Amino acid sequence: MENQNLILGNTISKLLDEKKYPTLRDILITMNPSDLAGIFLELKEDRIPLLFRLLPKELAAETFVEMDPDAQELLIRGFSDSELKEVIDELYIDDAVDLVEEMPANVVRRVLSQADPETRKSINELLKYPENSAGSMMTTEYVTLRPEMTVGESILRIRRTGFDKETIYTCYVTENGRLAGLLTVKDLLLAKDDDELVRDIMEENVISVTTSTDQEEVARMFAKYNFIAFPVVDNEERLVGIVTFDDAIDVMEEEATEDMELMGGMSPSEKSYRRSTVMDLFKQRIPWLLLLMISATFTGMIITSFETALAAQVALTAFIPMLMDTGGNSGSQSSVTVIRAISLGELQFRDLPWVIWKEIRTAVLCGVVLAAVCFLKIMIVDRMLLSNEGISMTVDLVVCLTLVVTVLMAKTIGAILPIGAKQLGFDPAVMSSPFLTTIVDALSLLVYFSIARALLGI
Amino acid sequence: MENQNLILGNTISKLLDEKKYPTLRDILITMNPSDLAGIFLELKEDRIPLLFRLLPKELAAETFVEMDPDAQELLIRGFSDSELKEVIDELYIDDAVDLVEEMPANVVRRVLSQADPETRKSINELLKYPENSAGSMMTTEYVTLRPEMTVGESILRIRRTGFDKETIYTCYVTENGRLAGLLTVKDLLLAKDDDELVRDIMEENVISVTTSTDQEEVARMFAKYNFIAFPVVDNEERLVGIVTFDDAIDVMEEEATEDMELMGGMSPSEKSYRRSTVMDLFKQRIPWLLLLMISATFTGMIITSFETALAAQVALTAFIPMLMDTGGNSGSQSSVTVIRAISLGELQFRDLPWVIWKEIRTAVLCGVVLAAVCFLKIMIVDRMLLSNEGISMTVDLVVCLTLVVTVLMAKTIGAILPIGAKQLGFDPAVMSSPFLTTIVDALSLLVYFSIARALLGI
Repeated sequence: MENQNLILGNTISKLLDEKKYPTLRDILITMNPSDLAGIFLELKEDRIPLLFRLLPKELAAETFVEMDPDAQELLIRGFSDSELKEVIDELYIDDAVDLVEEMPANVVRRVLSQADPETRKSINELLKYPENSAGSMMTTEYVTLRPEMTVGESILRIRRTGFDKETIYTCYVTENGRLAGLLTVKDLLLAKDDDELVRDIMEENVISVTTSTDQEEVARMFAKYNFIAFPVVDNEERLVGIVTFDDAIDVMEEEATEDMELMGGMSPSEKSYRRSTVMDLFKQRIPWLLLLMISATFTGMIITSFETALAAQVALTAFIPMLMDTGGNSGSQSSVTVIRAISLGELQFRDLPWVIWKEIRTAVLCGVVLAAVCFLKIMIVDRMLLSNEGISMTVDLVVCLTLVVTVLMAKTIGAILPIGAKQLGFDPAVMSSPFLTTIVDALSLLVYFSIARALLGI
Repeated sequence: MENQNLILGNTISKLLDEKKYPTLRDILITMNPSDLAGIFLELKEDRIPLLFRLLPKELAAETFVEMDPDAQELLIRGFSDSELKEVIDELYIDDAVDLVEEMPANVVRRVLSQADPETRKSINELLKYPENSAGSMMTTEYVTLRPEMTVGESILRIRRTGFDKETIYTCYVTENGRLAGLLTVKDLLLAKDDDELVRDIMEENVISVTTSTDQEEVARMFAKYNFIAFPVVDNEERLVGIVTFDDAIDVMEEEATEDMELMGGMSPSEKSYRRSTVMDLFKQRIPWLLLLMISATFTGMIITSFETALAAQVALTAFIPMLMDTGGNSGSQSSVTVIRAISLGELQFRDLPWVIWKEIRTAVLCGVVLAAVCFLKIMIVDRMLLSNEGISMTVDLVVCLTLVVTVLMAKTIGAILPIGAKQLGFDPAVMSSPFLTTIVDALSLLVYFSIARALLGI
């Protein structure tokens, strides 16, 4: 796909050089807006406005929406006022809002000044909703019907007003502004009789979201119900907009990326890897690295306080990395599983005891198997093959007992932390690493040295 | 949401006890199939068939599709042959295929024996496509038009045949079985004239997938193009099915979960956390824990071979956990970022040099800042506040130099591994942990002891 863009990008650059504009236009109009946006990514900056002007008006606006913000800004800065107006008039309101949210202030002022007064009003209203809410995702361009209309009248209305609606396939029935029901185009087309009333065939039990519903919740509803769109209502149950499945798909991608970034010990970023500068990546990563480094002071202190014991049994040091890694990995297994289950809406706070019990049983199974294998491995590999004579049977036992306890602790804590975080209003994914790592490291070292002290008498 | 199900579930259980079937029916028919499936989850097993039989035929089938496989199996086992036939007749082909894939062999035999011959043939054909391919996701129920039809005729055809199609909103134009174009219901409804020919208004540049396209690629195309459906063609460009956005949303969730599980050091599983038994979780987790434990033999060997040096400078041991954790975290930051960028189709193998260069610069920034803070922290906290006299200025320097080198190595390797894995045909997410952990641990210890040997002369 990307390679095709590169090849096509080269062809287009050559045609631009040779000023073969009619040929270019013929190629461009066969293409999809998303693919065109990909081509623009491959072009040199000074070519972008030139090629953009070759696109027919509607295709130009659709392509504009799919472009990355840098290219959008470049184009807007180069547009004449009338060109800018043309593009903005073609945008759906939710796309215009996204654009305004991404652009610097001086560009925003130009955009708003070129929008017609009604569009400007709609944009400004949508900008008031909190980021990541259904209100900020929704569009105000949808088809409304009245309960007393017939099927025939409804189809006529769609044919007359549907042109600039984001979706015509789900129509909303309103009575005095309040949402009374919905009707799909499928219902209308498959209705037995053109004289049937909307009131009689509409679905009255409408599942809606409110303007303040979190976008993650909205995305989850799309995954659950398989609808093309959801109506958005305000606190008085008045219909104020709709959210469509394509925006929900974007949100799902964003939220999954955010969870993964947090799991990987980074601050989430809305910029793609391609668009992130080195400084962006640095800012996203350094706080967590610093936090982890500082909190490792505890593990350092624990080791220091057992320094004499370690000096007496140097063989113990060799197993510190293995114990810490196994603890860390066991913990992240549970935390990642639980975080994902929370994200998918599978787990609630009330499930905590059930989760803990499940994790404890899994941990005991994992711990015992690991310890058994580890015991044999140490005996056979470390003691016999590598002939490390510092490792007595008792040292082996200390390591394996620690393993069982560490896995048990790590899995339990790994499951509790995200659920607790969620309950306290934090993002559960924050609790994956490095918090979990620090806690599990410190605890596993404490257990290790305590068991060593008890069994080896050091 | 879940709590509502619990409350409603209780109400419904009570009404069932009191045999108030008409009241129950009145409640049930107001509900959405997905919500009904949620209610069934909360019911005791023996209530499930009872409540299911109260649902009207179509709603029953729609609810059946949304239920979890355990409840589906329970119902099928309790169905009479005619009840089973009724449900299967109402299912879309792709849902029937999913059902057959999930059920044990004896249940599958019953399902297939009750399906009508044509349905059975379609199911068997779809079952032949490899799992996770577009062929296995698609449905064969779509609307086809012919190029010589008029807009009016097309609308008539949709009204006549659209009833049991999964989507009617995108219609496919075929000529001798080959896909010639597409037309949306919006195009048809907004067409200027009912006598216009499909040939003249259809979109000829159709973006399609083939039966063997990977489901992850299909999902990515939905995210990119915002279409409701994509046509699926075979090797001879013949239209054989369509995939719809709702299935793509499910695939996106599945694929994100799979990546997270691999990142968390687990084998991916298709079962939800709720449905996984302790044994399922154990099997998913133990291989990676064992692998990590065994591979930690290397870190153990490295430490053992520097045992005498460590005995001479016991203070060095205290920093092993911090260095290993920072290395691990730095590496997973890069690998998670790169894995996600690959999943979203942002990165290709040809980007490798660009990625490495970006990661090196980020690593140098992170490493230098970390080292500077660490140097001061060790001086102030460990040496002065905790008065650990074993820590000389040189020891501090050894630790901080190791930190810079470790972060650099970890970030570079963390970025290279997933891209390399992808190029070799593996899932990039496999390369997050514990492979990365093992490599970075071993390397960071080697660097630590080498620098210590050089600066401290041990």
